Amino acid sequence: MTETVLSSATKEVVIGFGRPFVMIGERINPTGRKLLAEEMTNGDFSRVESDAIAQVAAGAQMLDVNAGIPLADEPALLARAVELVQSVTDVPLAIDSSIIEALEAGLAVYRGKALINSVTGEVENMERVLPLVAKHGAAVVAISNDETGISEDPDVRFEVAKKIVLAANDHGIAAADVIVDPLVMPIGAMGTAGQQVFHLVRRLRDELGVNTTCGASNVSFGLPNRHNITGTFLAMAIGAGMTSAIMNPMHAEVRSSVMAADVLAGQDQDCARWIQANRDPNADGGARARRGRRRRPE
Amino acid sequence: MTETVLSSATKEVVIGFGRPFVMIGERINPTGRKLLAEEMTNGDFSRVESDAIAQVAAGAQMLDVNAGIPLADEPALLARAVELVQSVTDVPLAIDSSIIEALEAGLAVYRGKALINSVTGEVENMERVLPLVAKHGAAVVAISNDETGISEDPDVRFEVAKKIVLAANDHGIAAADVIVDPLVMPIGAMGTAGQQVFHLVRRLRDELGVNTTCGASNVSFGLPNRHNITGTFLAMAIGAGMTSAIMNPMHAEVRSSVMAADVLAGQDQDCARWIQANRDPNADGGARARRGRRRRPE
Repeated sequence: MTETVLSSATKEVVIGFGRPFVMIGERINPTGRKLLAEEMTNGDFSRVESDAIAQVAAGAQMLDVNAGIPLADEPALLARAVELVQSVTDVPLAIDSSIIEALEAGLAVYRGKALINSVTGEVENMERVLPLVAKHGAAVVAISNDETGISEDPDVRFEVAKKIVLAANDHGIAAADVIVDPLVMPIGAMGTAGQQVFHLVRRLRDELGVNTTCGASNVSFGLPNRHNITGTFLAMAIGAGMTSAIMNPMHAEVRSSVMAADVLAGQDQDCARWIQANRDPNADGGARARRGRRRRPE
Repeated sequence: MTETVLSSATKEVVIGFGRPFVMIGERINPTGRKLLAEEMTNGDFSRVESDAIAQVAAGAQMLDVNAGIPLADEPALLARAVELVQSVTDVPLAIDSSIIEALEAGLAVYRGKALINSVTGEVENMERVLPLVAKHGAAVVAISNDETGISEDPDVRFEVAKKIVLAANDHGIAAADVIVDPLVMPIGAMGTAGQQVFHLVRRLRDELGVNTTCGASNVSFGLPNRHNITGTFLAMAIGAGMTSAIMNPMHAEVRSSVMAADVLAGQDQDCARWIQANRDPNADGGARARRGRRRRPE
């Protein structure tokens, strides 16, 4: 069975078939978060810290850290964010940038085995990112697009993913350390977006034997009641074999869908996590919060 | 594409691949509903009528009608229930009994093309039910167990389903008029129950080309926050290709999961039904109710 092992200085997380789905918190990302971008640019990382703590408290087993702010010194910001997040939480991180120098800066300060987010199927990109992955003994998110763009044909995206896995292998990176992102489009703009992903995830698992991840929130962009779309998408993706996602763990309905899908995919032994989360009002609480229940005074 | 066409006197419903999932309301069933059983035995069908109206208002495209009360005159009760439900709603019905005389009595008064629920793979049962299906030009739910019981191996259940489809064909019943129930066990008692169903539904669709249904509520029996388990199960089953379920449409979270799964499976053109249900506070309202939103006075 394919297992991708990530670690912080003190904690290991395994992404793998038949294991509980791994939620990678997406919140530490200034893209579209104007206030956070301003604060980070001004050297105020208090929101980065509180978002890290809150996402882990909500159940994220890993966190994605991105410092992509136009015109800012992204390598310095990303390194600072990685250091701070590692000082307030113990979960492994995904170091997220499209700039190679930023990835290098983040990796330089990271303690443990990181997930590098990401490499694409573009030859130039692979030649820059894969040596870095190999050098640090890291794992990497492989995005299934290349010089020709993002194909609407999932079987073309499969071939791009395969190309990246083979190139990684040439750099001494095992297939288990390549987590493929099948690319999730907004379902409101492309009605086949869900089917494409489910089909591709099944092929990636059955034929390439790789773990998968995705930016889940994108699927519901522009739709009303979007958290229910995102949560249901994740459940169906888990049914198709997806093993992790970069997502917002702060929404109770999304978290609850992921946990229920783990039960139904046989990834929650004796339903223990589900029963715990839904019995103890101090635990996860997603379901209870959803029903609007309140604790009564003793 | 496989299409099962059911009808009432005035309305047609099509169950089929790529079409919106068909919710068959399960509530008109005295099993485990002591009060309803007492009322029906005493000739009071007011709750049957109100349950019929409420389920259709909640979005059920069909209703299952069952009158299985020990020691009661089930044929007479079922015929009365079918007549009354057809007088207050216009949706097609599933006539549900394990007693052949009750099915006959229900069919005798039914106007339209009914779904007979059910036939099993037991030879004696097939020889009694299938001629009735053929005689009335009805469709039938085929339950994938036989004289040997319910196998835990989904591939054995596939063979039982195939046997029923072939036997139906011998009676002149098209495969499109056989809707297979893969049998859903409680996930709390059998951790593989979900995977079994998803695997079997995929095979039934890909290899036999038949529509599928199930008693969905059973999957969450005994678990806390069970409606989220049931809703997530249905979403994953839709992802695997299931086309209908006998279920409780009265729970907002279950309904919302089914609607979101239709969006993600590409079965809700332009997300029109989703947007309608989530924009208009007088419409479906599942999502809004869940968030506890109230309409403000104008």
